[in-house]
Parts: sequence; C-alpha cells; structure tokens
Amino acid sequence: MTALDPEALGARAYAMIAELATISAEPDRLVRLFLSPEHRRAADLVARWMHEAGFSVSEDALGTLRGGFGSSRRRLLIGSHLDTVIDAGKYDGALGVIAGILAAEPFARAKAKLPFGIDVLAFGDEEGSRFPATTASSSACAGVFDQATLSLADADGVTLAAALRAYGKSPRDIAAAAYRPQDAAAYVEVHIEQGPVLEGKREPLGVVTGIVGQSRLRVTVTGKAGHAGTVPMHLRRDAYVGAAEMALALEKIVRAHRDDGMVGTVGQIEVLPGAVNIIPSESVFTVDLRALSDRLRKFAVERFQDEARRIATARGLGVAIETFHEIATADCAPALQDQLAASIEDLGHNPIRLPSGAGHDAQVMAQLCPAAMLFVRCRGGISHNPAEFTSVSDMGLAIAALIRFIERFQGD
Amino acid sequence: MTALDPEALGARAYAMIAELATISAEPDRLVRLFLSPEHRRAADLVARWMHEAGFSVSEDALGTLRGGFGSSRRRLLIGSHLDTVIDAGKYDGALGVIAGILAAEPFARAKAKLPFGIDVLAFGDEEGSRFPATTASSSACAGVFDQATLSLADADGVTLAAALRAYGKSPRDIAAAAYRPQDAAAYVEVHIEQGPVLEGKREPLGVVTGIVGQSRLRVTVTGKAGHAGTVPMHLRRDAYVGAAEMALALEKIVRAHRDDGMVGTVGQIEVLPGAVNIIPSESVFTVDLRALSDRLRKFAVERFQDEARRIATARGLGVAIETFHEIATADCAPALQDQLAASIEDLGHNPIRLPSGAGHDAQVMAQLCPAAMLFVRCRGGISHNPAEFTSVSDMGLAIAALIRFIERFQGD
Repeated sequence: MTALDPEALGARAYAMIAELATISAEPDRLVRLFLSPEHRRAADLVARWMHEAGFSVSEDALGTLRGGFGSSRRRLLIGSHLDTVIDAGKYDGALGVIAGILAAEPFARAKAKLPFGIDVLAFGDEEGSRFPATTASSSACAGVFDQATLSLADADGVTLAAALRAYGKSPRDIAAAAYRPQDAAAYVEVHIEQGPVLEGKREPLGVVTGIVGQSRLRVTVTGKAGHAGTVPMHLRRDAYVGAAEMALALEKIVRAHRDDGMVGTVGQIEVLPGAVNIIPSESVFTVDLRALSDRLRKFAVERFQDEARRIATARGLGVAIETFHEIATADCAPALQDQLAASIEDLGHNPIRLPSGAGHDAQVMAQLCPAAMLFVRCRGGISHNPAEFTSVSDMGLAIAALIRFIERFQGD
Repeated sequence: MTALDPEALGARAYAMIAELATISAEPDRLVRLFLSPEHRRAADLVARWMHEAGFSVSEDALGTLRGGFGSSRRRLLIGSHLDTVIDAGKYDGALGVIAGILAAEPFARAKAKLPFGIDVLAFGDEEGSRFPATTASSSACAGVFDQATLSLADADGVTLAAALRAYGKSPRDIAAAAYRPQDAAAYVEVHIEQGPVLEGKREPLGVVTGIVGQSRLRVTVTGKAGHAGTVPMHLRRDAYVGAAEMALALEKIVRAHRDDGMVGTVGQIEVLPGAVNIIPSESVFTVDLRALSDRLRKFAVERFQDEARRIATARGLGVAIETFHEIATADCAPALQDQLAASIEDLGHNPIRLPSGAGHDAQVMAQLCPAAMLFVRCRGGISHNPAEFTSVSDMGLAIAALIRFIERFQGD
C-alpha cells in the first residue's frame, strides 16, 4: 500500500473545485448547464487535468469526457458530473470527477500493473437543469440512452439533438458511446451526501446501500380565463387554485409515507395568461417524487394522479399528467460496498451504510455493471445551494479511501 | 331629437373595433400594453378618427388622447381605454372610446349649440397589464395621480417614468393633464358588462349603480432552497407549498362573502429558483380582491393577511405582503344614472340597474366629477378572453342611448 496524505489530497481537490466553480453562466451564482459554453470550458479544464495526470482523453457523443489508462479491455469506471443546478454549490458532481482524477493519478503515474484499466468519466447531464430529463450522458455510457430524449427542448425551445450538434457532436455516434457490459468491471462514484446522516453520526464517509427511485411528472391543469372582477366564485374554472390544491394533496400523500423516506416536491409552476386581473386558464407544474421502495413510489404516484383528477373534476378543470422521467431504485453491489467499507476502515473511520435520497449517475451505470457510491459528509446536509460545504479533510479522506479501493479491487 | 339608426351606428362601431384589434404586439393574440409601440399606433388611428369626426385633438403627459369640440370651459367627458390585457377580447375599452367618438360626432358636425363642450378621452392604462398599477392615465386627468407610480417597473425593469420618456412625454407635465373640478361637468363611460347579468335579463343596456372597490396585494413567501431528494419533508421550508396553501385560504375567505359579490384571484405566481429538483426558496404571487362593500373588502384583506402569516409561521416561512393598488367603491351619480336610464327608455328598452364587478376609469374619474357608466350586454359574460363578443345591434343601441344622453344633459 502506498503512503497517503489525505490533507494534501483534500487541498489539491479543493483548489481544483474552486477553479472549476469559477466557470459559470452568471457572475454572481453558479450555473453550468449541459452543452452550454460553460460546459465546454469546464470540460476543457478537466481534460487538461486528465492529461496532466497521465490519462489519454476522449469525449463521446453526449459530451462525456473519458480520461483513461491501462491497456486492459476490462475497465474500472470512476465518475460523476460537471453540470450544476441553478445557483448551485460547488461540490455536487465536481468532487466526484476530481476525486476520480486524483485517486487514479498515482496508478497512472506509477504505470501500475493492475488487472484492469481505469476510466475517469465526467458526465454532463445529471441535474436535468437544462432539458426536462436527467442522466442522458451516463445513459449513453450504460447503453440505455432513450432516443426520444433527443427531441426534448430546453426553455428556449432548443432540442437536445440541436444542442448536441451545436456542441460539435452527432446523435448518430451515441450508440458508440456505450461500454460493452463485459468490458465494464464496476462503476464507483464519490459524491457529497447532500443530506444530514453522516454529520449526525460524526463520520466523514459513508457507503451507499441503494439509490432511491424517482418519478418526475408534468401536470397541466386547464380551466377558463375570465375577468378577475366579474366572474362569481362559483362560476370559475380557475386553473391555478386547482393546481395549488394538487400541490397540497401531493404533500399530504408523501407525508403519509415518511417511514419510507418518501419526498415530493413541486419545483416549477407556470400560470397562464399570468396577469393580476385575469383568472388563470392554464397551470403547468412539475412533481418530483422519490422513495426507497419502488412499490410505494408507484403507489404514491397513482394516489397523486387520482387526487389530481378528483380535484380537477370537482373544479370543472381538465388535467393531463405526463411522466417525463422515471428511474427505479438501484441497489449498490454488495461486494463493492464491502470493499469501500474496508477501505474506509483502513483509514481508521467507521463506514456508515446509508441510502441515497438523491439520484445519481451511479443509478444509471448500475444498469451496465456492478455500481457503488462513497458518500462524503457535507455541512448541514445542505446541497443545491451556494451554502453547500464539505471540508478539505473529508474530501482528502474520500480520495484516500478511493485509492485504497483501487488497490483492493480485483477487476471482477 | 335627431333621428337615429342604431344598426348603422353599430356597424360603424364594429368596423372601427375590428380595425383597432389588428394593432397588437403579437400576431395570433391581442396584446396592447400601455406606452408600447402598439399603443402609439392605436392612438394614431384613434386620433385620425377624432380628426375626421371634427374634433381638435391633443395628447397629455400620460398619453391620453383628447378629442374635443365646443368653446365652453365646462366639459362633458366621455371616455374609456385603449390598452388591453394579454390575449384580450377586442371590445373591452375600445368600444367605449369608439362609442364616444360616434356619439359626439353628430354634435361636432352640426356645430350644435350646447351649454358645454365635449371631450372624448382615450386612456392608455386601465388594465395594469404592463406596470403593477392601473388607471395611471385617468388618475392624471382626475388630478389624483400618485407620483410614486412613476418608479414602478414592468417585467423588463423599465420604470413608468422611463417608458413615458421613451413615448415622448415628460413626467413634469403630468400636473397639467388634470382637469379643474369646476370645468368637469360629468364623466360618462360606455363599456361591455364583462359579466352575465344583462344577458340573463335579456336586455341590451344597463346603468351602473357603483363600481366595486379593489385591493391588489403582492405576497412574497420566503423559505429555504434544498435538494428535492435529500431533505426530509418535516425539515423543509418550502416556499411554494406555503404559497399554495395561502391561495386556497384566500379562496375560502372570499367564498364566505358571496352575498357581497366578493371575488378573489391569484393571477400571477413565480417560484424561485424554479427547477424540478430544488425545493423552492421563494414564491411571489398577486392577490386581486374585490367587493361591493369597502368595509367587507378591508375585513377580507385583513383576514387573508392573518391567514398568510399563520400559514407562514406554521411552515417556518417568511411572508411579506404589500398592497400595491387600492381603490374604494365608487357610487355612480344618481342624476346621471337617471338620465342614462331615460335615454335607454327612449329607445324602447328597459334600463337594468346593476353594479360593476370590474374596475374602470370611471371609478377614478368619480373623484373629479359626477360619473356614470352605461353597460352593454356581452355574450356569456366573457371578457379578458378572445371569445369576448358584443353584437352590432347592442353596440348601436349603446351609441344611440349616449346620443340621447348628450341631448338630455344640461351641463350640470
């Protein structure tokens, strides 16, 4: 085993995270959307780091960077994502990519004789902040990319297909981005926890047991526009109050399943025509519903749909509900979990086992090969927020644990 | 009394309304905002009609067109507005301006010896669709313009002051736009009913007894952003579900006062940061609350404020409520009501007396001088909607009644 200096690794990681965080579409907050000019600049920076680490670098049809070394067809995949939510923190995604580079670097430099090669993957689309879909990049690597995703449009009406072409890619090359299952030995991802469990247990690192399933719905409520002063309340078909009632119904359904850790969020709502003095004729809102149990999640989605239809009928409204994203709970591979846990113990820490309430690229990569995740403590469980924070020490321990994991991993 | 041909008057009015309706900011729906290029084009067309009718035409500091004739300082004011809501019908406002021109035209052409002059007024800002305020134009004519309105900004951040300058006006001239109370003999406005009463009574014309008071509030709810997957429901401070609960509380309060004809509407809502997978940190929505009784309206606003604060406290949210528009119920002048009623009877119809649930420029002009309104039946009570419709016959009857009113009016 090589000697490790977690503090030095953490300091290097922090410097790289800070540099990456300067690449944003806006001066005062971090916004880095899939296939944007900022994505290009971030990928160019990461490619430079990969070259400096001694990797050979390529980029696939979805913009995923691959920095690899070793001649074996059998690959250990280590990755995370470069895109961010709007007004993001700087650790979410970036830490996993940088941890992969810093953990693989000593093996590349030493030209270590490993029974596998390593590819560090920097995906571009985990958050779904630009297009109404997530994990398009890892789906392509996993060979499960849905061609229908190509016709989804962003807020400016630009489709994913058009955005890929503008980024210099061709949708025809997507199939070639997929790993052959026999070549993918395992996928491992380091990520901030984005929740309060590790902080509560006073432990820096955790091993993820599984990643919650998600359903994302788009709900369109249609009513009838009218003058806000002259249409009596009992004659209204107000598309907004109906939508508001549906949001509260969602909250009630989700709260009834707190033992499952179920969560539900209405993050976007638009009301038309959108004037102070006009009764809304249409409301469109999103629902993000997650649960550890796929069965309970599907049950909750069905209950929400029933409630939404009941509310619409009672108010004389129309309602259309479209599921635009759905992903099943992904169990992390027990053998990989154990190897991650042993690597954490090597560093003198107690490996906490915990589920992930957030979706991750690992959830998609689990459809290709055994997958696992290493969680890093973050302050207050805060994420998707500029206040997101993980200490240099904790980041250094995560990278050190990943190095121990690579040493321990046998390629099968 | 001159002979009248209501069908011919209605047909002329319809041709003018149809021509005015071609002036829109959008090809597929009617959008004509205050001080926009479309306002300019509409005002130019109406000024041409006023010139053709034999009026002398001027324009005041708020862009209100005045087409007048007669040398008396004592003026009968007849007006309505040229601005529209977003995706408007073509009769709201336009009919009143055109009815004023067509009713006054025979007196101007005949150089009639009247004990008063007539000014037809085409206001530019009745709907409040651009700036978060309404009736700035009529407020200037009535001498009750609030200077604070000048710093209100539209959705693009352009203030009313800047928009006026871009329209070629100077805020310094606003005081000069006001009529002296002793010069304003009366204000009369023809308008579509925008409600279902006249249709239900099978009568084409109505006399308005009073115009409901209004309160418009802007409610800002502040919570805490967070990851939609990792923050448990009981730890959330979701600014949207709180806002949704407040909208339902408003509905409940308003429905409890249906005898008063109270109505309440949330017409705009914006949620930040506005991503599928982020718990909203802020919601801003508008409330439009109207009632015949000022006392009940104020009581309902207070109850809503109490409920909003209670909901915010229970959910750990902040809430700030700003009243950005408030206008008291305006009673129409009994003598003018009687003269309008007699004019309708002259045409063989039964003058229905009814309140107005919608706000109008007449409500502001009532602060200057005795004011009255003539309502015209519209199909299904539909307004603020492209389906808005008033028949040629009903419009012709309204103009004929207004001509009879001018003949009957004594200037005091």
